[in-house]
Formats: sequence, structure tokens, C-alpha cells
Amino acid sequence: MTEANPNSRLEAFCDGVFAIALTLLIIDIKIPSTVEINSTNEFWLALKHITPSILAFVLSFIIILVTWVNHHNSLKLVNKSSASFIYANGFLLLTVVFIPFPTSLVGEHILTNHAAPAVLLYNVIIAIQGIAWVLLSGAELKNELAKNEKSITQIQINRKNGYFTFIVYSILAIISLWFPLTIAIVTTLTLIFWLIYGINIKHE
Amino acid sequence: MTEANPNSRLEAFCDGVFAIALTLLIIDIKIPSTVEINSTNEFWLALKHITPSILAFVLSFIIILVTWVNHHNSLKLVNKSSASFIYANGFLLLTVVFIPFPTSLVGEHILTNHAAPAVLLYNVIIAIQGIAWVLLSGAELKNELAKNEKSITQIQINRKNGYFTFIVYSILAIISLWFPLTIAIVTTLTLIFWLIYGINIKHE
Amino acid sequence: MTEANPNSRLEAFCDGVFAIALTLLIIDIKIPSTVEINSTNEFWLALKHITPSILAFVLSFIIILVTWVNHHNSLKLVNKSSASFIYANGFLLLTVVFIPFPTSLVGEHILTNHAAPAVLLYNVIIAIQGIAWVLLSGAELKNELAKNEKSITQIQINRKNGYFTFIVYSILAIISLWFPLTIAIVTTLTLIFWLIYGINIKHE
Amino acid sequence: MTEANPNSRLEAFCDGVFAIALTLLIIDIKIPSTVEINSTNEFWLALKHITPSILAFVLSFIIILVTWVNHHNSLKLVNKSSASFIYANGFLLLTVVFIPFPTSLVGEHILTNHAAPAVLLYNVIIAIQGIAWVLLSGAELKNELAKNEKSITQIQINRKNGYFTFIVYSILAIISLWFPLTIAIVTTLTLIFWLIYGINIKHE
Repeated sequence: MTEANPNSRLEAFCDGVFAIALTLLIIDIKIPSTVEINSTNEFWLALKHITPSILAFVLSFIIILVTWVNHHNSLKLVNKSSASFIYANGFLLLTVVFIPFPTSLVGEHILTNHAAPAVLLYNVIIAIQGIAWVLLSGAELKNELAKNEKSITQIQINRKNGYFTFIVYSILAIISLWFPLTIAIVTTLTLIFWLIYGINIKHE
Repeated sequence: MTEANPNSRLEAFCDGVFAIALTLLIIDIKIPSTVEINSTNEFWLALKHITPSILAFVLSFIIILVTWVNHHNSLKLVNKSSASFIYANGFLLLTVVFIPFPTSLVGEHILTNHAAPAVLLYNVIIAIQGIAWVLLSGAELKNELAKNEKSITQIQINRKNGYFTFIVYSILAIISLWFPLTIAIVTTLTLIFWLIYGINIKHE
Repeated sequence: MTEANPNSRLEAFCDGVFAIALTLLIIDIKIPSTVEINSTNEFWLALKHITPSILAFVLSFIIILVTWVNHHNSLKLVNKSSASFIYANGFLLLTVVFIPFPTSLVGEHILTNHAAPAVLLYNVIIAIQGIAWVLLSGAELKNELAKNEKSITQIQINRKNGYFTFIVYSILAIISLWFPLTIAIVTTLTLIFWLIYGINIKHE
Repeated sequence: MTEANPNSRLEAFCDGVFAIALTLLIIDIKIPSTVEINSTNEFWLALKHITPSILAFVLSFIIILVTWVNHHNSLKLVNKSSASFIYANGFLLLTVVFIPFPTSLVGEHILTNHAAPAVLLYNVIIAIQGIAWVLLSGAELKNELAKNEKSITQIQINRKNGYFTFIVYSILAIISLWFPLTIAIVTTLTLIFWLIYGINIKHE
């Protein structure tokens, strides 16, 4: 196994991190306590209050799932490993592991009059994830880890998408300083678009 | 490995999510603090107070374990993959990852006079899990991922069970608005039934 | 892979649960907050206060690690699977996942005058784990999952050890009602004994 | 699989623990609540307050990632297993699992006038990790688990590095009693050095 594919343990490790980051998102949804609630109506109200947290949870779940699918497809393109490739992967994982934090911020503060920092941070972390993809693709190309010519072309596309992601979400992050709620909706729509786009392209 | 079974990494990823969701359930059982307790009797009383949380923990543990066994058997039926199959799996995982939240709600509020929303949400999430099974089986059939004719028959049975699950738990969810405690007991009994049924059928 | 060993996915799933239960233990050690601390001396005092929690963490870490090693050796004895074997495994996992809860209780309450319920619960969960081993070995024998004659002998020893564990820790649990601190020390010593015993026996 | 490499399940288990410890770090960054914040400015201030926690998170993420890479390379040197090797691995995992605790302490207290205990504990845990490497290498040598002569040389280097780590971070721990902030910066710099050093050496 180790001989056949030098990346199988890296793959398993990354999968573990993705799986945990995904599952940990639920922890930040705090349940209303019995002390504050005295009737069914108050219970419904309390649940209504945490609806933004649940939406933010679903959104971040989608981001991490899409990133995992991309990572899955990306690791299929290489059959060698290198130290900078491993650390670029580590940087990508860092951005994934960090996602629960801005998710909580957005869930807690999106409906207040001071939502801007939360939405900004959420978009900044997606933008930095773009950089991680650029570094990962760069390491794959520089250390010649690709399986074949076709893989090289795909890695170059991944790198281009990384730059694109960085630019788009950086711009959204800046605009969110003035229009946090609008940008939150735009960010959500772009991610739903990626999800549908991911389902429709022929998966091999 | 990647060549032999295209789903092995998906399998490992799903297993990771199931394992974590299962284990995270324990986090929501809050331990009584030393500040509030001054004698052994008060300690026993405090533990008695969190008994519903422990029962809810065991119940959700069983749900996730049974779902994992079903998922395990379900992935044995296919030997190909597709994008919509991956995303249907992702949707199933979303419903699994969400379970700790209604579990906490039920554990905290079941013995109050406003338990209805908690029990309703708990049944709604199981009903939605039924939809996830319908989507998963649908993707398996539509993209022709099944191993052989016998697998196709089993996938069709899984889809039927998915519809059945959706209908039964939707009805339980609605009735729970009036009789939350009764429905909580009925839901528990149905799950124990599934568990025993799962042990008794010939496992292959 | 699936053909060669039907238990490889079960193994991976159990490993995941063990690994998470082990790691989650650290979450329950609450760090002292800046609000309560104004000097280095107060910081040291606060750390001294959570020393029992750290000891309980190390103890539970050892229990889960030893259980994992035993589980690892136990799964080597079988090369088939059955539904009741899977659910007996599930029951063992339930006892493992539950460990962080009595660990927190012991860590928080061991130095108070009402430590009995915490120590009792801690020993009860180890006793129940003994039952889980009895059920697991029983399923292995009843469904004839063992690799060969030598495996059967070893499984019978495991079952005997399960009964022994159940009896010993049940007795410790009962005595802890009167002498919680003494029993906490005795329990710790027995576990250190298992650990050293596990290191010294010839590992194959 | 089990026959080919007796350590594949140990590897998977350790990977799981590393992955979870890495991901759990984010949980300890507490988000500011809506109750305390009334304007965007206050939100920014609250985020500025938790910057040390975020830096500590990134630092510990790097430590665990570098340790994982080292562990990954270390397990490549052996193709046999032994009980003391497994328990030395367990001890290494214990030091990894513990890291979130001093990380929280440093994040919460580094900018106060009583940071010494936090920085001391952080360096102590890295020093103890050095001991874990000494024990692991010792078990590998004593039980003759190495693949070949070249592996033995590398394991001896690992053991030497373990002693070196223990001595360096013990000294840093002691000095941190007088100069906590300086030592925190020095510790960070040494870890960044290990990271860059790890990227630059030829990875095989």
C-alpha cells in the first residue's frame, strides 16, 4: 500500500481533518437552556433566534464538502509526494480547520447592526483558501508530481481557479464593510453555484 | 487501491464523519459543577437531572450506528461513483452531523411543559434522513452505479424504505406538537425495533 | 480489499471512534479565565485546582488506549463478520464514547466531600465495558467468526477476562460509596497494572 | 493488508488522533457574544482581543502538523511492531492530545502580567514530546523493528533529536519564569525554523 501510492497516508490524514472540521461545525450551535424558557412559544422564539446559526452551519458544511471533493479530485492527479506539497496541503487544512470560527461569528452577528467584521472574516478565509490552492498546484507543478500531461493541464486550471477565488472573495470581503448582509447573500449564492456546477460536470 | 474501488476514499470520509458525530454526542452532556453541589445527595439529584440527556445520548448513538451499518451495506452494492452520488452522500452526512443538536434539545427539555419543539425537530431530522436515502438510491439507480441485478433490487428496496421513513417520522413530528412525551417514547421504540431487526436479518 | 477482509471498514470505523474519544478528553479541562486571575500566584493556584482533572484525563487516556490495543488484538482473531458481532462492537464503542463524562465528574469532584457518585460511575462504566467484551466474544464464538482453533482459545480467554472485569469493577463501584478516594486510587493502580502487563506480554 | 504491514492500523489510529487534535484547536477560540457588543467598533476590538488566541492556534497547528510529518517519516523506517513500540506511540499521542490545553492558556494569558505559567507549560509539553521521541526510537532499536541498516541510522538520529528537543525546551521553560513574552517569541521562532527546515530537506 505504502509503495503503491506514497500519498495514501496523506490522503487519509486530510480526509480525517475534513471530516472533523465538518462535524465540529454543529458544536457552535448553542441550544437554548431550560432556565430561560417557560413556554412552548418562548421555545419557538429561541429556535427562531438560532436560525442564522443553522444557516451558517449548512453553508460552511457545503464549503468544506465542496473543498473535500476538489481535494479528492486534485490528489488523483499526482502520484508522487514532496515536502512542499505536504506543507501546502497543511496550509489548505489550516484554512479548512479555521472555518468554524467565522461561521460562528456570522451565525451570531449577521442580524445585528454590526455584522460587517463577521462577513468580512468569512470572505477573507475563503480568499486565503484560494491562495492555498495556488500554493498546492504550484508545489505539484514545481516538483513534477503529476501523473501525466493531462494531469498537468488540470493542475494549471486548478491554479487559475485558486487565483480567481482569491480575487473574487477579496473583493466581496472589502465590499462587506459597507453592505454586510448583501454580501452574505452573494457569498451564499456563489457557493450554491459551485455546488450545482460541481454536480453537473461529468465526474470521473 | 484507487483503481480497484473508486469509493474507498468516500467510504473512509463517511466513516470518519459517522465516527465523529457519534463521539461528539457526549460533549453535550454538561457535568454539574462543584459550585452548585455541597453534598452527596445534591450530587445524586444533579445526576438524576441529566438522566434524560444520557438517554437522548444513547438513543442518538443507536440512530447513528444503525445509519452507519445501513450506509456500510449500501456502499457494498455499488462499484462506481458519480458527482450526484457524492453529493447525495454529502446530504446524508449533513443529516447525521446535525443529530447532536436535536439530541441536546430533547435531553434538556423533554421533562418540561414545552417539550414539543424539541421532539418535533428530532423527528423532522429523521424524516429528512429518509429523503437523503431516497436521493442516494436515486443517484445510484440513475447513474447506473450498481454492481449487478441483485444490487439494483436492493437499492430499490432502500429507496422504498427511504420514502417510508420520511412519511412515518413526518407524521410522528406533527403529532408531537400535541403529545411530545408519547411521541418521544414511540420514536424510541421504533428505533429499538430497527436495531433488533438489523441484528436478526441475515448479515452478509 | 473489501473481499479480502470483511472487517476492514469496521476496524477503521472503530479506530476512528477510539481516536476521537481519546482526543475529546482534553476538551473537558476548562482553562482558568483572565477575569478571575490577577497575579502569577493566582495563576499557579488555579492550575493546581485543575490538577485532578489532568490526572483524570491521563487515566482515561490510558483506559481508552489499552482498550484500543485489546480491540486491535481481538479483531485479529476473526476473519468473518455478523450483525450481532457488529452491534456488540457498537456496544463496546458506546462504553468508550461515554468515558469522557465520568472522567469530567471525577476530575471536578474527587477532592470534595461528595466524590462518591463520580467514582462509582467511573467504575460502573468500566464494569459495563467488561459486559461489552463478554458480548463481543460471545458473538465471535456463536457465529463462528474465529480464524482457527488457536483464535477460539484466545476468544474464550477474552470472554473470561470480560466477566472478571465486570465483577472486579462492580465491587469497586459498590465500595466507592463509602471510600471514594481510596477506590479512585485502587482503580488507578489496577489500570497501571493492566498497562504494564500489556507491555510485558509478548506482543505478536 | 494486515499481513503486509502490521503497523497500518496503528498508523491509521495515530493519523486519526493527529487530525482530531489539529482540528479541536479551533474550539478553544471563543467568539465574542452579541450581548457584549453594540457597534462595529466594539466588534473589531473584541476580535483584536482574541488575536493572541488565533496566533496560538496557528502555532499549535504548525507543531502538530510538523509532528505528524515526523511521525509519518518515522513509521516508514520500521516494518514490525511490539507492545512497547505501541505504548511509546501512545505516549507520543498523549503529548499531542494535550497541546490544546497550554495553547488555550497562552492565548488567554500571554498579554497579561502573569503569563509565565502558560508559557512554561507550553514549553514543558514540547520538552516531554522530546522524551516521547526518545522512548519511541528506543523501542524501535531495542525490539529490532527497523527495516534495514539505513533505517537504524535514521532512528538513532531521531533519538538524538529527541534528547536535544527535551534539553532545549526545558531550558526555555525555566527561563520563561522570568521572561514569558520573550520566550514565547523564541519558541515561535524555533518552530518556524523547524517548519522551514522540514520543507527544505529532500523529502523522500
